[in-house]
Amino acid sequence: ATKAGVITRLKRIEGQVGGLIRMVDEDRYCVDVLTQVAAIQSALDAVGLQLLEDHTRGCVATAVKAGHGEKSIAELMTAVKRFAR
Amino acid sequence: ATKAGVITRLKRIEGQVGGLIRMVDEDRYCVDVLTQVAAIQSALDAVGLQLLEDHTRGCVATAVKAGHGEKSIAELMTAVKRFAR
Amino acid sequence: ATKAGVITRLKRIEGQVGGLIRMVDEDRYCVDVLTQVAAIQSALDAVGLQLLEDHTRGCVATAVKAGHGEKSIAELMTAVKRFAR
Amino acid sequence: ATKAGVITRLKRIEGQVGGLIRMVDEDRYCVDVLTQVAAIQSALDAVGLQLLEDHTRGCVATAVKAGHGEKSIAELMTAVKRFAR
Repeated sequence: ATKAGVITRLKRIEGQVGGLIRMVDEDRYCVDVLTQVAAIQSALDAVGLQLLEDHTRGCVATAVKAGHGEKSIAELMTAVKRFAR
Repeated sequence: ATKAGVITRLKRIEGQVGGLIRMVDEDRYCVDVLTQVAAIQSALDAVGLQLLEDHTRGCVATAVKAGHGEKSIAELMTAVKRFAR
Repeated sequence: ATKAGVITRLKRIEGQVGGLIRMVDEDRYCVDVLTQVAAIQSALDAVGLQLLEDHTRGCVATAVKAGHGEKSIAELMTAVKRFAR
Repeated sequence: ATKAGVITRLKRIEGQVGGLIRMVDEDRYCVDVLTQVAAIQSALDAVGLQLLEDHTRGCVATAVKAGHGEKSIAELMTAVKRFAR
């Protein structure tokens, strides 16, 4: 269910990128183009955070319970840093 | 030239989103999926900044020279805010 | 007036950092500490954007009107990149 | 040790904000002021990520092991979202 939901959201993002290409090709006003870029980024951020949360509730929690959470948390933090400012 | 360059970069991003969908579909390891999300975001950030710079050198500079830069700079700042943290 | 306003906001941020130091020193709950860090970042982002806008309306617009906006816009973009994601 | 380290870093940030106030007060060039704002944000981001990592290795891991990680992970994600773009 979550997987299907993530794929649906990513396909929508793929479509938004296609729309952005058309906007640039049709010489649409720069500010409208930039607004579309920002919309895609927000959508990607949201999916990224969803994936991060699923990963934490799944893999990371399992590793921590099994007593070998060290590596898992280190990896998680690397991923968080990429999303952080 | 710049327009063609932007479109080339956006098509590459579209392909990266397609690759991301396949990764999720194939249940690839979450951390690899998250790395791909972050790579797409970096690529989009770079295109967004390029578009912002072109817009400033083009429309905004023209409007400022013509003595009606107010509205143009206000719009620019709105766009910058969307890209800012 | 703008300058006084910016200084007032920065002094408030300085006070917030002082408050954050006390929270860490008193072993306050991590999540509350993190919330305070995020509040300071938001306040700094807002001041940064204000300064960016003042700079664009001031120095950049003046340079563009005088016909030597190139260097000014390049500098502006460097500053925008630092604030961007 | 970590606590002392965090406090040292925060005191340095407090000093940087003080320096920023002086720069604005002395009408220093906007671009230099903006560079200082960005430097403070980077320093704060780094402390925030450090605190996030400590919290995950500490409170969150403990809660997960004790079988009640749900609330802890939800809180963690809220904190991550605040740091995310």
